[in-house]
Amino acid sequence: MKLILGDKAYSTWSLRPWLVLRRCGADFNEVMVPLNRPDTAEAIARHAPAGKVPALQVDGVTIWDSLAITLWAEERFPDVALWPADAKARWVARSTVCEMHSAFGTLRGELGMAPDHPMCVVQDQPHVPSEALSADIRRMIAMWKDAKARFGQNGPFLFGDWSVADAFFTPVAARFRHFRIDLNAHGDDGTAKAYIDALLSQPDFLDWEAAGRAELAA
Amino acid sequence: MKLILGDKAYSTWSLRPWLVLRRCGADFNEVMVPLNRPDTAEAIARHAPAGKVPALQVDGVTIWDSLAITLWAEERFPDVALWPADAKARWVARSTVCEMHSAFGTLRGELGMAPDHPMCVVQDQPHVPSEALSADIRRMIAMWKDAKARFGQNGPFLFGDWSVADAFFTPVAARFRHFRIDLNAHGDDGTAKAYIDALLSQPDFLDWEAAGRAELAA
Repeated sequence: MKLILGDKAYSTWSLRPWLVLRRCGADFNEVMVPLNRPDTAEAIARHAPAGKVPALQVDGVTIWDSLAITLWAEERFPDVALWPADAKARWVARSTVCEMHSAFGTLRGELGMAPDHPMCVVQDQPHVPSEALSADIRRMIAMWKDAKARFGQNGPFLFGDWSVADAFFTPVAARFRHFRIDLNAHGDDGTAKAYIDALLSQPDFLDWEAAGRAELAA
Repeated sequence: MKLILGDKAYSTWSLRPWLVLRRCGADFNEVMVPLNRPDTAEAIARHAPAGKVPALQVDGVTIWDSLAITLWAEERFPDVALWPADAKARWVARSTVCEMHSAFGTLRGELGMAPDHPMCVVQDQPHVPSEALSADIRRMIAMWKDAKARFGQNGPFLFGDWSVADAFFTPVAARFRHFRIDLNAHGDDGTAKAYIDALLSQPDFLDWEAAGRAELAA
């Protein structure tokens, strides 16, 4: 089983299925495709026919989307608690993950991947959000506060215990940290700050971050 | 159980979970929120706390994303074949659905919802694609041809028998028809044309289209 990834310092989307597979205890090899290079597209196409990372090669098939990889993991590792056990929490968790997957276009673009922004390691490059980005940030924080208040009181993660939602929001946490987003100015009452701190101190994320630092130092 | 929808003539995203729920034989009421009106945002917020349609209200919870509603349906109706039975076909089907959900930004925007484009009913309003849109269309057709060739030879749908992938691509078929997209100019060998014809002649889609026509005539 091979997970095709972008460089860890830069590729926040690759981080999602990686966190899920780690959580499952999956035995996988990593194939790193450096992003931001003239031959990146060609290198990705060599490993992932759809031309996208992340992608998982398993049993002779390529699964080329972070959420599709997650749904595969749910099938393959039925004993691992990837979603909240409570039904209502689970349905809301999936809503937040799917909204993250399909929306937040400005956040993905304006705080997006760029050669001078190794977002997965602390770089402290403050960014003043556009109005459209501010709207995305306010929506993100409102969504987090709502989920936390209704379903996440018994643990540090969005739905209390760790779930796929946390894998999907860890890249956002890394971006907010990297770009020094002012959370209070976007409706936070401390909930989002505490949640981001929890995400960025997960042992698996710390491993990813250390690998990203090593890449930059190489 | 209530499904909050946009008007059927315009709202291609609402069509997705509606097709899935129909397929499941779910007993649901429809709450229609007219789009493109000054009070649309307010009307949506009254029914769906996240401010988005489609949304499903069930057991006191709102599920506010088309894919999240689909995953809920998978749980609630375990005997309905929503995904291909073959494991590899299923993983690829989920990859196509998730790519549809997260990508194709230009297609969603340039061929997007607008007051003068009731896309779910035939209107024949030709549009010359930008270069970026052409790239999205080429990718869509390449993805369809690949899935069809590998997994969809024994039936009219993308993976042979009907699956969630078909619910998610029916809106694309309606857009391609409405805007008279030249499929051959974007890599089609007849496969995409035949697939689009299959999607737009599903009985459930014909019901939706008839309701859209009735809205326009009202």
